[in-house]
Amino acid sequence: MSSAASFRVEKDLLGTLEVPADAYYGIQTLRAANNFHLSGVPLSHYPKLVVGLAMVKQAAADANRELGHLSDAKHAAISAACARLIKGDYHEQFVVDMIQGGAGTSTNMNANEVIANIALEAMGHQKGEYQYLHPNNDVNMAQSTNDAYPTAIRLGLLLGHDALLASLESLIQAFAAKGEEFSHVLKMGRTQLQDAVPMTLGQEFRAFATTMTEDLHRLRSLAPELLTEINLGGTAIGTGINADPGYQALAVQRLALISGQPLVPAADLIEATSDMGAFVLFSGMLKRTAVKLSKICNDLRLLSSGPRTGINEINLPARQPGSSIMPGKVNPVIPEAVNQVAFAIMGNDLALTVAAEGGQLQLNVMEPLIAYKIFDSIRLLQRAMDMLREHCIVGITANEQRCRELVEHSIGLVTALNPYIGYENATRIARVALESGRGVLELVREEKLLDDAMLDDILRPENMIAPRLVPLKA
Amino acid sequence: MSSAASFRVEKDLLGTLEVPADAYYGIQTLRAANNFHLSGVPLSHYPKLVVGLAMVKQAAADANRELGHLSDAKHAAISAACARLIKGDYHEQFVVDMIQGGAGTSTNMNANEVIANIALEAMGHQKGEYQYLHPNNDVNMAQSTNDAYPTAIRLGLLLGHDALLASLESLIQAFAAKGEEFSHVLKMGRTQLQDAVPMTLGQEFRAFATTMTEDLHRLRSLAPELLTEINLGGTAIGTGINADPGYQALAVQRLALISGQPLVPAADLIEATSDMGAFVLFSGMLKRTAVKLSKICNDLRLLSSGPRTGINEINLPARQPGSSIMPGKVNPVIPEAVNQVAFAIMGNDLALTVAAEGGQLQLNVMEPLIAYKIFDSIRLLQRAMDMLREHCIVGITANEQRCRELVEHSIGLVTALNPYIGYENATRIARVALESGRGVLELVREEKLLDDAMLDDILRPENMIAPRLVPLKA
Amino acid sequence: MSSAASFRVEKDLLGTLEVPADAYYGIQTLRAANNFHLSGVPLSHYPKLVVGLAMVKQAAADANRELGHLSDAKHAAISAACARLIKGDYHEQFVVDMIQGGAGTSTNMNANEVIANIALEAMGHQKGEYQYLHPNNDVNMAQSTNDAYPTAIRLGLLLGHDALLASLESLIQAFAAKGEEFSHVLKMGRTQLQDAVPMTLGQEFRAFATTMTEDLHRLRSLAPELLTEINLGGTAIGTGINADPGYQALAVQRLALISGQPLVPAADLIEATSDMGAFVLFSGMLKRTAVKLSKICNDLRLLSSGPRTGINEINLPARQPGSSIMPGKVNPVIPEAVNQVAFAIMGNDLALTVAAEGGQLQLNVMEPLIAYKIFDSIRLLQRAMDMLREHCIVGITANEQRCRELVEHSIGLVTALNPYIGYENATRIARVALESGRGVLELVREEKLLDDAMLDDILRPENMIAPRLVPLKA
Amino acid sequence: MSSAASFRVEKDLLGTLEVPADAYYGIQTLRAANNFHLSGVPLSHYPKLVVGLAMVKQAAADANRELGHLSDAKHAAISAACARLIKGDYHEQFVVDMIQGGAGTSTNMNANEVIANIALEAMGHQKGEYQYLHPNNDVNMAQSTNDAYPTAIRLGLLLGHDALLASLESLIQAFAAKGEEFSHVLKMGRTQLQDAVPMTLGQEFRAFATTMTEDLHRLRSLAPELLTEINLGGTAIGTGINADPGYQALAVQRLALISGQPLVPAADLIEATSDMGAFVLFSGMLKRTAVKLSKICNDLRLLSSGPRTGINEINLPARQPGSSIMPGKVNPVIPEAVNQVAFAIMGNDLALTVAAEGGQLQLNVMEPLIAYKIFDSIRLLQRAMDMLREHCIVGITANEQRCRELVEHSIGLVTALNPYIGYENATRIARVALESGRGVLELVREEKLLDDAMLDDILRPENMIAPRLVPLKA
Repeated sequence: MSSAASFRVEKDLLGTLEVPADAYYGIQTLRAANNFHLSGVPLSHYPKLVVGLAMVKQAAADANRELGHLSDAKHAAISAACARLIKGDYHEQFVVDMIQGGAGTSTNMNANEVIANIALEAMGHQKGEYQYLHPNNDVNMAQSTNDAYPTAIRLGLLLGHDALLASLESLIQAFAAKGEEFSHVLKMGRTQLQDAVPMTLGQEFRAFATTMTEDLHRLRSLAPELLTEINLGGTAIGTGINADPGYQALAVQRLALISGQPLVPAADLIEATSDMGAFVLFSGMLKRTAVKLSKICNDLRLLSSGPRTGINEINLPARQPGSSIMPGKVNPVIPEAVNQVAFAIMGNDLALTVAAEGGQLQLNVMEPLIAYKIFDSIRLLQRAMDMLREHCIVGITANEQRCRELVEHSIGLVTALNPYIGYENATRIARVALESGRGVLELVREEKLLDDAMLDDILRPENMIAPRLVPLKA
Repeated sequence: MSSAASFRVEKDLLGTLEVPADAYYGIQTLRAANNFHLSGVPLSHYPKLVVGLAMVKQAAADANRELGHLSDAKHAAISAACARLIKGDYHEQFVVDMIQGGAGTSTNMNANEVIANIALEAMGHQKGEYQYLHPNNDVNMAQSTNDAYPTAIRLGLLLGHDALLASLESLIQAFAAKGEEFSHVLKMGRTQLQDAVPMTLGQEFRAFATTMTEDLHRLRSLAPELLTEINLGGTAIGTGINADPGYQALAVQRLALISGQPLVPAADLIEATSDMGAFVLFSGMLKRTAVKLSKICNDLRLLSSGPRTGINEINLPARQPGSSIMPGKVNPVIPEAVNQVAFAIMGNDLALTVAAEGGQLQLNVMEPLIAYKIFDSIRLLQRAMDMLREHCIVGITANEQRCRELVEHSIGLVTALNPYIGYENATRIARVALESGRGVLELVREEKLLDDAMLDDILRPENMIAPRLVPLKA
Repeated sequence: MSSAASFRVEKDLLGTLEVPADAYYGIQTLRAANNFHLSGVPLSHYPKLVVGLAMVKQAAADANRELGHLSDAKHAAISAACARLIKGDYHEQFVVDMIQGGAGTSTNMNANEVIANIALEAMGHQKGEYQYLHPNNDVNMAQSTNDAYPTAIRLGLLLGHDALLASLESLIQAFAAKGEEFSHVLKMGRTQLQDAVPMTLGQEFRAFATTMTEDLHRLRSLAPELLTEINLGGTAIGTGINADPGYQALAVQRLALISGQPLVPAADLIEATSDMGAFVLFSGMLKRTAVKLSKICNDLRLLSSGPRTGINEINLPARQPGSSIMPGKVNPVIPEAVNQVAFAIMGNDLALTVAAEGGQLQLNVMEPLIAYKIFDSIRLLQRAMDMLREHCIVGITANEQRCRELVEHSIGLVTALNPYIGYENATRIARVALESGRGVLELVREEKLLDDAMLDDILRPENMIAPRLVPLKA
Repeated sequence: MSSAASFRVEKDLLGTLEVPADAYYGIQTLRAANNFHLSGVPLSHYPKLVVGLAMVKQAAADANRELGHLSDAKHAAISAACARLIKGDYHEQFVVDMIQGGAGTSTNMNANEVIANIALEAMGHQKGEYQYLHPNNDVNMAQSTNDAYPTAIRLGLLLGHDALLASLESLIQAFAAKGEEFSHVLKMGRTQLQDAVPMTLGQEFRAFATTMTEDLHRLRSLAPELLTEINLGGTAIGTGINADPGYQALAVQRLALISGQPLVPAADLIEATSDMGAFVLFSGMLKRTAVKLSKICNDLRLLSSGPRTGINEINLPARQPGSSIMPGKVNPVIPEAVNQVAFAIMGNDLALTVAAEGGQLQLNVMEPLIAYKIFDSIRLLQRAMDMLREHCIVGITANEQRCRELVEHSIGLVTALNPYIGYENATRIARVALESGRGVLELVREEKLLDDAMLDDILRPENMIAPRLVPLKA
């Protein structure tokens, strides 16, 4: 008897299965869970995708009621269920693996079944009594996976976008603050890992802020450009077969309203059903941001290398002991982790791109992988940026004296003297310095090429780190 | 004596070399050519890059004259030389390998030396008489490779952009024309390679036009957004060290004027010196276009598969005999080549991305590979689009009768009857048809589920390929 | 009081933290868990890695006892703890994210701390009473993360290898069984998606078995070639600094014995400490297997396309309903999922490759990502192969009559007649057949080019699917 | 009249074309050249591929003569033609683009036509008089592109393999020589870019030799394992249709003899016709070698960074002036170029992998791209290794005093004292040194923790760079 209570029997075209009694998902979700035991990452891992699905179902139900196809009672129950999902409840019921065959059908059915069963309970029925409210006929009414699923993915990405931008913006502010803090710290710039010419540490950090700000603007503008055109209403292949002629416009309007996103219908629904171009470019943009972060982290690791046998211009905050065998060693673990995240995002972009190429005829059946990889890249990127800011950037300190000593002992300093002592003298001084191990300034003073006042003027930081009017060559 | 005439001796910091007497390039170019024997692809392979370099040198010379640093005579000679390069002359003198160390220094010096020697001859001097006009002091005046080279790359990309867009636009028109031509051809749509619901062949080709049109718009807007910010004037690391304070603004203005491109100075020259983000995203966009083309070509190959044991809905024009062993075989060679181009572009994007990640501190020394791969992707893409249009799309014909037969014999047709005969009947009819090998319409007629007039109405193409008002369910 | 019981205070070089009272991990694990909130995939996700770590710790403890550095009591307690981990207990204590900075230090410390605390309890002490047995001084004795961690990864891969091979072998057997079952089914072969010449469906499936068998052999031989050389004993950078001269040989011997794997010391420990080549090639091999599986799955989807408007030579078992809107539609969901797994593995290979390139000087700090991606690829591959076999291959049936009809109506059949009727006749017949829609055999009979007996002989399957002695050309 | 002499008219199934009179290729090559204007890289770019094609044609002609299908006269003429190609003549006649549709048909026909026309002239006929010797009927006798082309690719790779190995071996010797030369130079090892423990510069270079030696062995064994199984004799799809039953064995034997390579027939010709696994793994191995080289070059750039504000432990030979604006700057241009080659090879591997996945049914139509990318990777790799050795490694010098100073001033030195002064003392000393800027040895002496004799002993290089028996802990 107690075993009878532990499951219910559901039925579909292929036969019957025992669904756990307390599951809000149904037979088709169970089939998919049995079929696809792959990544181990369930849909519930990406809450914005679940919320996107719920909003799509709500919008469809609204349109269907307005067109007279769905009763008020059913609409009310579906609405109650969608509201719970949007609030964040029942997400654990989204159990299907992110990697799945069927072009998202299992994801769509997972949503249909969970909503139907929550709604059924709201109506006073038992889970599984689909005669009162059906996952397909009612929750999925006028939809196909092929329009509902891509729409939910786009919407899910839009819903999470502000949080991504906020993390990026906070990181930028952290870089900019260090740019201010270090604006007086003169140091050597390096090109090709060779000593080049002076700059300030502040300029270096401000450049980090600048480059990420470009990405902030780009990401902010790209998301609406790429993701707001949806194919809801296209049904199976974009022809809208069997849909009410009034359905598409209504459903899209409702979805825009519910989500607060500027959604519009795609101009060519046939094209929109199979096209993955928006995801390819969006992922390409995420990859770009990851690549920039990785370059910055490489720089942070170089600049903090040492403490004695490296560059050691800055100190990263210690986050964990570095070595059991080497006393006092502390490692740049946070930037190292960001590098790895960037590489993972590059891998995601590749997987997604190959999947996009794999579309055939009226559908891209690889869309679940595309969705998985793009949501994963966003999550990784956001977490990496938060980690980098909080555990690294805000705690960076400058070794100001070390920076200045490196400038003063550098040979690159001669470049600044170039316009005053001439290229020929400069080259000679550079060579002597290099061979003798002596300092450029020492040699210039020794040779009385410039007096101390002149030298002091030339070497004042504000004079070396920007263009200035120099004496014309004879 | 004749051997004496076959070369001239040039000198740089590292010593002397014999430069071929008729070469317009000089010792530093020769060193680079000796150092880098890698891809076998010389700079001259990408004429827009050479023109971009020449325009940068012209703009710098203009600014330097205006600021009083360059004499009118030298300016005139440099201008004459740049004009020749812009016209397309002397490009064969750009002999350095596209893959090179030195962050583009060799490319920059190749330009400086060729321009100097053309200019010297224009002044009535011999090649190599640099005392009259110097590759570094005069042609490269106020520039560093680190600002001149990235500027020339961006400019080269902008200069070639219209031709890329024109090829894309022509291809779109070819797709659109076929969309019109085939607008009356009813066929089965397919999802997951399984029969789905009817559509027209015209809709299928129009969707090709639509998806490429999205890329046309995206490419058209991305190029100016990404490529018009230049770091000319930043010199070595973006601080503008040793440059005249008036130089940057003048040089950028001149370059915009000369090139006809809306170039503007980068806001943060430190950042702009090392940042490769624009190239990463631009390449990501090229990759997206390539992926779309590849998907279309996969479709063309599927749709023309056969002639007897495949889908065979369309015929691609025969371009070459297909087999020496199989009489009459003709293969879809053009789409196959496009697929391979797309894969090559995906590979280029990866190489470029890894190179972008490899920047360090104030410079990205991998920029030559980035330039190589992005110019290569563009050339491949443009040629592939021209080939596809000219040798394939415009000659495609439809097997109209085959298309219609497939619709009539399909089981997917039952989906169109769904609203009229009910889902239960439809499922039963589908199963009987599948098991017996009979047609859906035949069975519906036999069971008198719908009369012929009604069937004719439902099955009229215009009724099947768009939403229509269907009887409400009871 | 109860709150006091809920945690214990631990201390390291950076200060103190509250560790949950019931946690077997300690302060350094907790720091890492706080630092790295990235992939969401904890170490415990890959049990073979955890077991590999435990075996390394056991081997080190054995060697240290034998050399007189570790007391019998401590050794016994450590051994008891390692045994539990090897058995599969306490894996949930491995909480650090697979993506982490620090080159695996956090993973190593997670193992050290969990083992220490299990051991402490076995000794009758409380967790955290490290004065009796210390994670660093005792469990990690004579080790550095830089030798213990890479060794554990290699060992973890070796420990899981047999299961991977078993899944592959089972899949091969399933392909081979279908090769047998379909050995009499004559069908058209296709090249470039165009009709080519006849073969059997059995040959097609046997080729799947053959190609995967090559990978079975390759994987079987590659794993020991690549993974059995370990750097245990190299300590920090491979010089073995501070290690007992007898330690390395003993520790490696013990580890080989404990694990049953033919482990040997690397010849050059400096090299072995930083080299990731084995992982790059092993991942490259996994990628190859994935690519082959993906190609096979593409074929399965093509061959089962239809049921009416595609190739439809085989039927895949139905695994789940295909569409809510299209009655009777069943999709090839299992091969579709395998395709996506293959793309994910390609992405993993890329991420891993870039990480391998990112090593610097005496260490590759990106090794955690490398480990993550390679373990992930293996798991995905194994699960995908099991899924493919169980849910797809074993249930495939042939549409024998359809296969034969396609052969008989094909034009490619004329190739078999080529040697008997001549190339000229064959080409003419092919053209007439194509233009008229008639059959090749029908035309040959009509023209009396061959009599029925001869035709029957030529067209017997065994005569068409292998070389045979044909009349010589005049 | 002279214009009449400038071309000849040839004819194929699609009609006639004017072929340049002096061209040895014919109409099908011309069609392909007109169709595929893509990479700009003709077949002639890869001489080993051309030689491989010629050897295949020779072997087929030998077998066909022996079986009585080819007359002695034709065989002699074909043999003469093949000998010229094998010698290196006429390669410029291989004009088809490496990227091509048709699965290599155009490459195969380019070979057939060139050989036929050279042979015709050898027989005293005019080019184009195919009635005497036919590209298809005679030169291509018993072959299909689908077996001849993959065989030629494999053979081409084998033929070039020794040269690749020789370049690798020379590079290894250069690394090993530096390992010897620098065996006495004590320096700091670094992990995670942080100071670790001492080693010698010789150990560092020896590790470079070791890691590349592993690749030498691996490449040496992989090539025969992967590339010697050929599908010659399988004709169109591997069934050997229309081939003489004795042909396959004879042709393969002859090819093995002619080429001197241990070629054997593939066990399953159906599988071998479409399988690209060997190329995927071989490219994966090339990628691994490239990644190792790139890591080494990253190290060389780090170790030579400076001269004043970097690590500066070694000097790379100056290959070209580094900067026009910065006097005396010399950059590590050779390692930088190797990095970029490595990235290009990673891109090639990706393109090739995606192409391998794109095979369908009985053929992989993307094989031309696979061939292109693998030949390109090999050429790039070989050239990069030669460049690296010749222009960089052999000229590297050590800054011995700098190396020693860095060791002596390092804090990591304390690790070596650890066993003698205890971890607690070591940690304290490290902290004081770090905070005060003083040296570890100075502090140890000041505190009289160790006497000078003991310190000297501990710090002798041979004692720090290998395990040694240290006092046991109490």
